[in-house]
Amino acid sequence: MINISSAIEISGTVAFAVSGSFSAMQKRLDVFGVLIMGFVTAIGGGTIRDVLIGDTPVAWMRDYQLPLIILGTVIATILFKKYIKAFKITLFLFDALGLGLFTIIGIQKGLAAGLNPGVCVALGTITGCFGGVIRDILLNDIPLIFRKEIYATACIVGGTIYVLLMGTINEDFNKLLAVAMVCAIRIVAVKYKLTLPRFYA
Amino acid sequence: MINISSAIEISGTVAFAVSGSFSAMQKRLDVFGVLIMGFVTAIGGGTIRDVLIGDTPVAWMRDYQLPLIILGTVIATILFKKYIKAFKITLFLFDALGLGLFTIIGIQKGLAAGLNPGVCVALGTITGCFGGVIRDILLNDIPLIFRKEIYATACIVGGTIYVLLMGTINEDFNKLLAVAMVCAIRIVAVKYKLTLPRFYA
Amino acid sequence: MINISSAIEISGTVAFAVSGSFSAMQKRLDVFGVLIMGFVTAIGGGTIRDVLIGDTPVAWMRDYQLPLIILGTVIATILFKKYIKAFKITLFLFDALGLGLFTIIGIQKGLAAGLNPGVCVALGTITGCFGGVIRDILLNDIPLIFRKEIYATACIVGGTIYVLLMGTINEDFNKLLAVAMVCAIRIVAVKYKLTLPRFYA
Repeated sequence: MINISSAIEISGTVAFAVSGSFSAMQKRLDVFGVLIMGFVTAIGGGTIRDVLIGDTPVAWMRDYQLPLIILGTVIATILFKKYIKAFKITLFLFDALGLGLFTIIGIQKGLAAGLNPGVCVALGTITGCFGGVIRDILLNDIPLIFRKEIYATACIVGGTIYVLLMGTINEDFNKLLAVAMVCAIRIVAVKYKLTLPRFYA
Repeated sequence: MINISSAIEISGTVAFAVSGSFSAMQKRLDVFGVLIMGFVTAIGGGTIRDVLIGDTPVAWMRDYQLPLIILGTVIATILFKKYIKAFKITLFLFDALGLGLFTIIGIQKGLAAGLNPGVCVALGTITGCFGGVIRDILLNDIPLIFRKEIYATACIVGGTIYVLLMGTINEDFNKLLAVAMVCAIRIVAVKYKLTLPRFYA
Repeated sequence: MINISSAIEISGTVAFAVSGSFSAMQKRLDVFGVLIMGFVTAIGGGTIRDVLIGDTPVAWMRDYQLPLIILGTVIATILFKKYIKAFKITLFLFDALGLGLFTIIGIQKGLAAGLNPGVCVALGTITGCFGGVIRDILLNDIPLIFRKEIYATACIVGGTIYVLLMGTINEDFNKLLAVAMVCAIRIVAVKYKLTLPRFYA
């Protein structure tokens, strides 16, 4: 399980870093701006999580591997941007997988810190979604996840199922189920262009 | 005193959650965006305060009650938005009360952490005002408190009086006086449309 | 060395506070907004650094001197804004010096926390640059350092040299060299209008 988790986490990080770099290039930032956007999109959610629960220095500072992977990803994105566009669907799937795994990682960190299950689901959702929120704030947009598609909702549903089933079924199976649920909701939402309802004040 | 404080804090939280939800509905966010906006407006100031002084996990993560109250408030705001508009003045008064109490709570936390009184007033002002600042940043506006009306100034004046009188008069009376001062400044400022001076560069 | 460092740090803080106040006045914020902008620009980078490594309460809360210096600077900027414009070049040099020293201070804090050298360079860059990033976010602009001139790059180059030479040459000389390098890159970049390359997606 560890190797699979680790591989999915790296794929998710890569997908998030690509997404941040692309947004930055579309906004015509310089090469440093592109690098920073790749980083914050990939590590932003986990950083906010660690700061909120007080697990500092935050994760990416204690990890030798992840910053290098992100750096390599951003450079590759800049060099091969034309080709990467062709892998749009692959990237979307990595992003969905990463979103699911990041959510579960966040929940597990919250449980380990002794927080109540509802707060842990919120923490998992923050881990999965807030890299993109910081990306959008830095690029001066209203965060995408508040406006379009079902994104955070996938984390909340998957995370809630994980917390409810915890202890009743095999842990590894529960984890896989929750990640699969997050992915499935994302895929269905994007394929059928599902959106959450709006209420105007 | 505890019960009154507690009731005022809940009223303030409710008023802040309503204000965040309303702003989000006006910007046409989806239902999840409205929920998040309600939350960050209500808990943003206290969260920044706890992160800055290192009191983690931050307050809302250790509290079972507050997240539920905010959730209920946001749902009620969505359902009854037409009616809530009719309570505009009531909400404004709750907001003013909450602002005052949040300021004093922030100052007390700072004093308990051994910080100097000036820094504590800044911390109280952050507690009272920065939920609204995060709300405005997420909604892609220049924060309202930097542009309009006397808002943070009410916290600074009320907080300074509290810190200066501390130890010279009864603690509960001092607290009430400071909260009343914050409310009074807000009410006078809004009633007479007072604004701070501007200097253009 | 301590006195020189201290003098440069204060000069850098003053320059950053002036830059924040000016931006705020240009955006027509009220006097409280100008004050806050002066503060966050001056202390934002160090605050994010301290929060990320868990060194809380953050630096400015434990320091009696710095908040007063910033307050005085903001008031002076408002009063003498016409004259300060005449010192544009002086302010630019202070800013470059402060940037260099803030970078080295950040790196040293990271090393003291046992972080790896690459992460420490990132931390130094955050310390130097993120006050300006917060300023731009609050004023609703895409952060300047992602769009214009060589700014963060100067921190990265100077910081990398410092980390590489560490232990091989005299510590004080290394520090001076790194700060001088950051300044030199900034001065050359601004004088010759050098920018980083851009790649559009």
